Amino acid sequence: MQAIQWQNGLVTFIDQTKLPHTEEYITTSDYNVIIEAIKKLRIRGAPLIGIAAAYGVALACLELQRKKSQNYLVDLKIIIEEFKNTRPTAVNLFWALDRVAKFVSPLSDIDSVTNNIINEAIKIHTEDKLMCESIGKLGNQIVPEKANILTHCNTGALATGGEGTALAIIKYAQKAGKKINVFVDETRPLLQGARLTTWELMKAGINCTLITDNTAAFLLQQKKVDLILTGADRVTINGFAANKIGTYNLAVLAKFHNIPFYIAVPSSSIDLDIDKPEQIIIEERNPDEVRKIKDLYISPETVNVYNPSFDITPPELITGIITENNVYRYPYQPEFYKLKSSE
Amino acid sequence: MQAIQWQNGLVTFIDQTKLPHTEEYITTSDYNVIIEAIKKLRIRGAPLIGIAAAYGVALACLELQRKKSQNYLVDLKIIIEEFKNTRPTAVNLFWALDRVAKFVSPLSDIDSVTNNIINEAIKIHTEDKLMCESIGKLGNQIVPEKANILTHCNTGALATGGEGTALAIIKYAQKAGKKINVFVDETRPLLQGARLTTWELMKAGINCTLITDNTAAFLLQQKKVDLILTGADRVTINGFAANKIGTYNLAVLAKFHNIPFYIAVPSSSIDLDIDKPEQIIIEERNPDEVRKIKDLYISPETVNVYNPSFDITPPELITGIITENNVYRYPYQPEFYKLKSSE
Repeated sequence: MQAIQWQNGLVTFIDQTKLPHTEEYITTSDYNVIIEAIKKLRIRGAPLIGIAAAYGVALACLELQRKKSQNYLVDLKIIIEEFKNTRPTAVNLFWALDRVAKFVSPLSDIDSVTNNIINEAIKIHTEDKLMCESIGKLGNQIVPEKANILTHCNTGALATGGEGTALAIIKYAQKAGKKINVFVDETRPLLQGARLTTWELMKAGINCTLITDNTAAFLLQQKKVDLILTGADRVTINGFAANKIGTYNLAVLAKFHNIPFYIAVPSSSIDLDIDKPEQIIIEERNPDEVRKIKDLYISPETVNVYNPSFDITPPELITGIITENNVYRYPYQPEFYKLKSSE
Repeated sequence: MQAIQWQNGLVTFIDQTKLPHTEEYITTSDYNVIIEAIKKLRIRGAPLIGIAAAYGVALACLELQRKKSQNYLVDLKIIIEEFKNTRPTAVNLFWALDRVAKFVSPLSDIDSVTNNIINEAIKIHTEDKLMCESIGKLGNQIVPEKANILTHCNTGALATGGEGTALAIIKYAQKAGKKINVFVDETRPLLQGARLTTWELMKAGINCTLITDNTAAFLLQQKKVDLILTGADRVTINGFAANKIGTYNLAVLAKFHNIPFYIAVPSSSIDLDIDKPEQIIIEERNPDEVRKIKDLYISPETVNVYNPSFDITPPELITGIITENNVYRYPYQPEFYKLKSSE
């Protein structure tokens, strides 16, 4: 299963809102379909969003080329802005769009802009696959021979261009012969754990048990969890990590129960330009995501709701941050600062 | 709104599984309907379960009386056992059943057994109403003039014979002119917070905001909560509190963020005979409660699930335990021991 593919000027992606009941793929030449898919979480997961946006801009180039657009430079810039406005928290989105945007130059004609952007998007995707492999391999060193791992949201093949971030580590550890059992937080409101992570783990033949988010504390109290492993959408240079709402809860629980708490991210998710948690915009999503499940109201229809999509975990609660390059340990700033100087 | 009523040999109760969309009452003379209602959570909340079971036994008496049963003593003992097997964790259930069971005596004829049990059931209900009033009044002293209160599950008129336990305090504080805002955990898997507590608070005109359970930590981090207030189904003599899964999570969060964490319970929920958390049987419910919401699967249909209905909060994480008699402070054993000696 590949969450996204580029082939002959078409993008094919799995519609994640249909999982786990239906494995349905959408193939499109229309970049607007990609924008809508990112907004509606048909495509989700920070690295995958970046790849999808880059492919989306590539589709837009092909469309402008077909239309023989005279204003393609202006049009492309507007379209890139539209992609930037889909999900405000994911840094990979901006990072991927900046990578393709640098080819939008008045010195190139539309054909070479298009070719360059297609190549760059494919390169972003390929790099992401390799990044997943490296994270899996490097992260495996923190997994004991027999490990009960608690995870949150989805950080697997459905979130990336390859095998995932946190889930890539779990898959690698299982392949390396370790005895792995995974507890999966269902991850309300959008239930990525229940819908996507269990589906991926079961497909990969990895033992897993689904729990409601508020069961994690009780599992830790009973010493049924050896480590907690999640992804992150954005990490500051000093190690504040924005990730799916509920992650900070797990980090507090890990601290209280003296259990290691790791996050796994591509280095592109580390935003070297910010060092304050307030600088991360926390997306607040539609209250109906909490009031309803699918089309069914589970609460009074007019009840007030607070629905932040992410929370922020401070660096001192994070045992280690695993990227494709290294397993970093707290304090993060000195090491991440070196990445900045090497930019 | 009254969650349960006894009138002319009939029990009327609100079907809580239909809320918040439909306010539907069931009136029955059949004790089997009460047993089924407790098992299926149409009737829920530790104190309400006790009242309902006592009324259920009263209905059984009337039925045996109508049938002119010769074996009514044996029959009643069997029926009382059936009620005891409905929900294993709620101590009020056993307590209420023991209170009516003591009238099942070979020295009485069926008419006097029936009358005695009906009167005792009504007395249990009346005492519970008064208990709610006292908890509300006493508990009000721990609520600041302006309070953002986080609560879990449902502890209101839908859980008791009166205005509730934790929710009675909130209602009393609001009536006393305090500025109250309530954050309501949706309380997966059965969503009692989303379905019942928001409905009750909105009906009572109290400001409330619904959150997913994994948003609580983020609220506390942002200092948006002044205190946490929940109920409990069973408290040991030294203060271990069994309550809806997720309560222990909140207690850990409260400790970590230095916010007071109170529980409110009728004194009948304090089990003076046990002092070890292992002595509390934790009910594990059907995995489909997690896999499905209403009739809709939200996960793979065959995924493993761990679905404990309760967790246990250790006494050192509880700032205070509020009953109809007192606001107890840690350590609880010396004070609760006095209750035992006065039994």
